[in-house]
Amino acid sequence: MTITLSDIQAAAGRLKGHAVETPLIESPALNERLGGRVLLKPETLQRAGAFKFRGAYNRLSQLTADERKRGVVAFSSGNHAQGVALAAQLIGCPALIVMPSDSPAVKVAGTKGFGAEIRFYDRFTEDRIAIADEIAAQRGCIVVPSYDDPHIIAGQGTLGLEIVEQARALGVELDRVLSPVGGGGLIAGTSTAVKGLSPTTKVWGAEPAGFDETRRSMISGQRESIDKDARSICDALLTLIPGALTWPINSQLLSGIVAVTDAEVAEAMRYAFSVLKLVVEPGGCVALAAALAGKIDVAGKTSAVVLSGGNVDPGLFARVLAGEI
Amino acid sequence: MTITLSDIQAAAGRLKGHAVETPLIESPALNERLGGRVLLKPETLQRAGAFKFRGAYNRLSQLTADERKRGVVAFSSGNHAQGVALAAQLIGCPALIVMPSDSPAVKVAGTKGFGAEIRFYDRFTEDRIAIADEIAAQRGCIVVPSYDDPHIIAGQGTLGLEIVEQARALGVELDRVLSPVGGGGLIAGTSTAVKGLSPTTKVWGAEPAGFDETRRSMISGQRESIDKDARSICDALLTLIPGALTWPINSQLLSGIVAVTDAEVAEAMRYAFSVLKLVVEPGGCVALAAALAGKIDVAGKTSAVVLSGGNVDPGLFARVLAGEI
Repeated sequence: MTITLSDIQAAAGRLKGHAVETPLIESPALNERLGGRVLLKPETLQRAGAFKFRGAYNRLSQLTADERKRGVVAFSSGNHAQGVALAAQLIGCPALIVMPSDSPAVKVAGTKGFGAEIRFYDRFTEDRIAIADEIAAQRGCIVVPSYDDPHIIAGQGTLGLEIVEQARALGVELDRVLSPVGGGGLIAGTSTAVKGLSPTTKVWGAEPAGFDETRRSMISGQRESIDKDARSICDALLTLIPGALTWPINSQLLSGIVAVTDAEVAEAMRYAFSVLKLVVEPGGCVALAAALAGKIDVAGKTSAVVLSGGNVDPGLFARVLAGEI
Repeated sequence: MTITLSDIQAAAGRLKGHAVETPLIESPALNERLGGRVLLKPETLQRAGAFKFRGAYNRLSQLTADERKRGVVAFSSGNHAQGVALAAQLIGCPALIVMPSDSPAVKVAGTKGFGAEIRFYDRFTEDRIAIADEIAAQRGCIVVPSYDDPHIIAGQGTLGLEIVEQARALGVELDRVLSPVGGGGLIAGTSTAVKGLSPTTKVWGAEPAGFDETRRSMISGQRESIDKDARSICDALLTLIPGALTWPINSQLLSGIVAVTDAEVAEAMRYAFSVLKLVVEPGGCVALAAALAGKIDVAGKTSAVVLSGGNVDPGLFARVLAGEI
């Protein structure tokens, strides 16, 4: 199954007037620091605070009247949960979200706030897909995967469309696009859009150290799993293996992936706070962290960097600001 | 002395390519909360983290070659300090900044970081204007006031130009513009631009409780001073009396001013963090606080709200997030 540029353009049509067209913003201080021109795409400003609303709304807006009545079920660490919950609320269908019991409180509260029912599970001992499938079978509702779904990928790809179009409105052709990688849906959609509109632009990914399954898969040439004991502050990116649908796209379209440490992520969050004045969650900050740490070279180039989400607990944010992480 | 729309348009020409044209952003969650359409103007994303760079650059870019050599002196609690220091660095002239000894560390560090020399003074016992005038006399350098200067006011007014133009690009005519008020330079320039382009748009100001000298002056019809023992977390807005130049403009153009408490400001900062994902300093948040507290009515209207700066110490920010303020 392939996702095409026209699938993404169709998704953009569905999202128009519902999703926020987040701006492309520029910080002269960041440009100076990195020695290149960097256009930031703050999906922190998206509805529900992360890019996930794009894919969720694209999927849910295509439900039949009967499917809407039966509702949807999704499993998510929090951002997809909120995206699906909000999209379901807007569309008027019930949503049940299967969330890890260690999800950030802010994401649980957000999901509940959008009216969804929540079923917690243990991320280390239970299988969220099995739980979601069981609920779907019991209730006759639709499973909305967080990345391995063509509508989800096409929805996330609208971010890539906007990046290229907004850059061109500034008279800019991009050398590089840098994006976080979790299950790979965002970067699969984004790279499909970017490569479709601007084939010479290179797309790079960033993953948390320990959860760099797509990076390792790109090296070996096949889907690799991560060590189940790995830990990271990037709660949004704790994927165990590249997606069955996202991996073939990413393995073909990406120029490379780097891994960043918790310390590099925390440093990038502090930079976003103190210089950019943006609240970025750990997982949303990995691409910026990779640029700031010099792991993806943006010097002398024009790059877009995706800040994919901003849903971070105030307590963790305060600890990051205090330099405790 | 009057500042005209064409002065502001000329300033916009000087700033082009030097200042950031900050975007006008919209949060469906905020719209829903307030029951109206609100377009945020985040000057937190401006160079040096506040609108102050606009006025400073407009003033400094008009220095003669001889004046540039002799340098500039400014007095400021921090944001004007950084704006002048950065503008001086870009233009290549020395800058000395007279800052209160209780300025936020982040603002002192920023000012030093832009290469300015700093002279501290005690905000409660010393006269900053006298200190700056003495330095100017000794060194033969130019004093750059933080608000009572036509070039500064015209520079800040470029923010108002952008608000109206960016709103119109969205097909929107604004009912109201809400802006923080300190010395009154920002809102004097902004209201001149807004009223010049869109006479029916009403401009409202917000001040910190205890430092509501312009609000009280509008009630009495003459410039009123504040109680010298007043305290507020809004370090950027601790003005003692409306400006000689800004007061006649503001008394004529503003529809009204409200005062917000520290608690309302802290609540708005937490809202900006958790929902908008923006880092806003206390003084930058007073207009948003006024809207959230229901002190300026935006329900059923289309309004622009200025977030004027984001330079806040991480320690204070953490205390606000923890609900200690």
